Amino acid sequence: MQLNKGLLTDFYELSMIQGYFKVNKNPLVVFDMFFRSQPFNSGYSIFAGLGSLLKTLENFTFSKEDIDYLNSLGCFDQEFLDYLKNFKFEGDIYAMEEGTVVFPNEPLIRVHAKLIEAQILESIILNIINFQTLIATKAARIYLASEKKSILEFGLRRSQGIDGALSASRAAYIGGVAGTSNTMAGKKYGIPVSGTMAHSWVMAFENEEEAFFKFAEIYPNDAPILLIDTYDTLGSGIENAIKVGKALKKQGRKIGVRLDSGDLQYLSDKVRKRLDKAGLDDAFIVVSNELNEEVINQLARLETPIDNWGVGTNLVTGGKTSALTGVYKLVSKKENDQYKHVIKLSNNPAKTTMPGIKQVYRFYDHSDSAIADMLTLNEEKVDKNQFNLYHPHYDKKFYTIKEYKKLVPLLKKVVKNGKVTHPMPSISVIQSKTKKELECLDSSYKRLLNPHIYKISLSAKLKNLKDKLTEEKIGFSEKKDK
Amino acid sequence: MQLNKGLLTDFYELSMIQGYFKVNKNPLVVFDMFFRSQPFNSGYSIFAGLGSLLKTLENFTFSKEDIDYLNSLGCFDQEFLDYLKNFKFEGDIYAMEEGTVVFPNEPLIRVHAKLIEAQILESIILNIINFQTLIATKAARIYLASEKKSILEFGLRRSQGIDGALSASRAAYIGGVAGTSNTMAGKKYGIPVSGTMAHSWVMAFENEEEAFFKFAEIYPNDAPILLIDTYDTLGSGIENAIKVGKALKKQGRKIGVRLDSGDLQYLSDKVRKRLDKAGLDDAFIVVSNELNEEVINQLARLETPIDNWGVGTNLVTGGKTSALTGVYKLVSKKENDQYKHVIKLSNNPAKTTMPGIKQVYRFYDHSDSAIADMLTLNEEKVDKNQFNLYHPHYDKKFYTIKEYKKLVPLLKKVVKNGKVTHPMPSISVIQSKTKKELECLDSSYKRLLNPHIYKISLSAKLKNLKDKLTEEKIGFSEKKDK
Repeated sequence: MQLNKGLLTDFYELSMIQGYFKVNKNPLVVFDMFFRSQPFNSGYSIFAGLGSLLKTLENFTFSKEDIDYLNSLGCFDQEFLDYLKNFKFEGDIYAMEEGTVVFPNEPLIRVHAKLIEAQILESIILNIINFQTLIATKAARIYLASEKKSILEFGLRRSQGIDGALSASRAAYIGGVAGTSNTMAGKKYGIPVSGTMAHSWVMAFENEEEAFFKFAEIYPNDAPILLIDTYDTLGSGIENAIKVGKALKKQGRKIGVRLDSGDLQYLSDKVRKRLDKAGLDDAFIVVSNELNEEVINQLARLETPIDNWGVGTNLVTGGKTSALTGVYKLVSKKENDQYKHVIKLSNNPAKTTMPGIKQVYRFYDHSDSAIADMLTLNEEKVDKNQFNLYHPHYDKKFYTIKEYKKLVPLLKKVVKNGKVTHPMPSISVIQSKTKKELECLDSSYKRLLNPHIYKISLSAKLKNLKDKLTEEKIGFSEKKDK
Repeated sequence: MQLNKGLLTDFYELSMIQGYFKVNKNPLVVFDMFFRSQPFNSGYSIFAGLGSLLKTLENFTFSKEDIDYLNSLGCFDQEFLDYLKNFKFEGDIYAMEEGTVVFPNEPLIRVHAKLIEAQILESIILNIINFQTLIATKAARIYLASEKKSILEFGLRRSQGIDGALSASRAAYIGGVAGTSNTMAGKKYGIPVSGTMAHSWVMAFENEEEAFFKFAEIYPNDAPILLIDTYDTLGSGIENAIKVGKALKKQGRKIGVRLDSGDLQYLSDKVRKRLDKAGLDDAFIVVSNELNEEVINQLARLETPIDNWGVGTNLVTGGKTSALTGVYKLVSKKENDQYKHVIKLSNNPAKTTMPGIKQVYRFYDHSDSAIADMLTLNEEKVDKNQFNLYHPHYDKKFYTIKEYKKLVPLLKKVVKNGKVTHPMPSISVIQSKTKKELECLDSSYKRLLNPHIYKISLSAKLKNLKDKLTEEKIGFSEKKDK
């Protein structure tokens, strides 16, 4: 793929920005990126993709061939193409930290830039953040569903294109998986890689016993994970694995066995008993085969003796929920040296945008558990003892916070004048952040089905701004209606 | 992304091939890539991804940094790493043409190579073909559902990573869409790009009328597509669009209007009437908003006056079906200068593999309609007048073909000794192929719901081989059981 990423934009962005360029309409503006509903009916999401996004923005430029291509389309002027030739994002970006637990309607990313620069980034911001947040969330759900066991991501062959695989591996690791099968993701992101044998290894030898012993011999430093379901799991499969296990035990080594078909509870129970009876109680069991968080949780609750879970398709594509539907909306624009906050109304109150340049604060109680989030205007002072909070869509006050231990702002400046202002954390630091964040969340929000709804609310000042702009708009259109 | 693509492989492939390398087990083998069930409960799929795959294979090599990375993992020997350093695929590949209508259980790709070379390609073949075939199929379903209207792919912001977007654009075009919003996909694959304005354009001006007129003025050679639902679709939106339409009509130009919210049938009907009444019967209507083939087909059947459909999420991710679950299986290996065909049995007959080096023939009737496909051994002569065909999983003969016009082999050699043997067709040639293929398919197979099941069957010779190998295997394991 080419280094210059400027063409990763919806064509209408280019149509619009040439328009802005021609009519010389390029004020400073602020856009929010947020999503309106949780994927997977989850009680939380895990914010991910920022590191990848900031790297891509560094290359959000146009090569000579890109300009030639745009020129060949016959709808762009030379003057505008010259502008693009030197295009470089020079605005500021505020964002949540990757690995943060996030909720609907709160800005995850806030872009402050000239209209043209802010507009052209819409597609790439949404592409990267929507997907990685979707997959980090799926991974966290799977990790918690397994009761924090070791999850291996096996999705390369079922993922949506090459980068669909690579960035899924990145996001899945952020969400809590222990490793990936994707070797390039291992190199690119520093994720642990793993994988031992497929059925074809077993079939390539005269018999299963030879295949298992050879593998153990070739990798003398590892615990070989023997795939025991090629011929007869509870017959030759476990028998041959035990032979290898006993031989390796004498050398101080252990084995794992992998099940890739059949009823995983029934087989794991039987296999565990056979291993234990043979004195191989340090042998571990790995399973795979169309797993998702519901299946995993069911088996985990039944105390099925499974140590590692290999998850592919559902983890790297999201399964039936294949997209997070995040959006990117104008919330303020500078006019005559002052920001004028804007709102877009909708017949559906949940689709009315939240005006203004905003901060998100999270309240924690004395046991460090997150209580609620509050959206405020960025300029607001928030050093009060008591807060009246307002529902984002309905009219009345709905919550008063009287006691809390701390109040933490979540949006931080990460880009200033187009330059990343501090090094992005390593992927393992981000994974630790995710795990810590999940620990600060009451278990009711983490239920797989029908979770408790975490409260996201507005400060009194933001609520007032929203009401005022709404009234102005309605007044405006009622006047126009006459 | 790096040029060398060798690391795009599941780690277990590397574990296995180092094993084969060390025990010097590297016979010529044949692998089939196929899928077992149709995505979307479709009656057909559209084969896609071959062009991308062959390009990737040219770069399926390892850079010095790749080798250093593998070395750093501490599980590969120098000798094996030296082998990888010079790795280049040198086998042969047979494949369907892109755009071919395909069905479960028929080989789409057949790889003839040394075991190590064939094994290491598994992940990348499945990654590319599974995804592009999924999306080309979705696109074809959407295209037919719209009654062959113009479909625009708008998926960049909701697709799974950057390449999830780019290769989705490619596959969607193969499946029949008219264009993409993804500018880079336009450049990379030569797909027509399109897109005019978002709500933010309308909101950036003092009022909607100005926003519409400015756009028409800035793009004097195009029919502007005016987004009319920012404020009030059937109020100011259509009124302002008609003002622009009437002004442009005097210059010999026309307009389009786009609806992105609300009830698309109700609004399209009303808007069409308003446009016609204003004398703008050449104005066209474009709609978007969470569309899929079922929604589109329902509106098309109701003769909703929609000219263009913009489809995003469901088209580029597959929606609820986010993966095609194609597999890659060993079917033959050379021993003592002779191919020995292999089978893998399963308790589930549908998962037993089809042994042997195979060709796929398609029978056509006198109106050029496809009747059925037949899997044969590649070596078979097929110049007969009458064929007894066998069900792939059940035992008895199930079909006799007595009359047909032509019998066409579908797998063709595309790579010889690692070199692509003929130039891949352009993407628009592939799209034409898809459309022609769909015309040769009886409408019963193209129904959206519960389509007619197209017959895939075995020649007598292939059926005999499968039976013989099955009996040998069962005999073998029964002997072992004693």
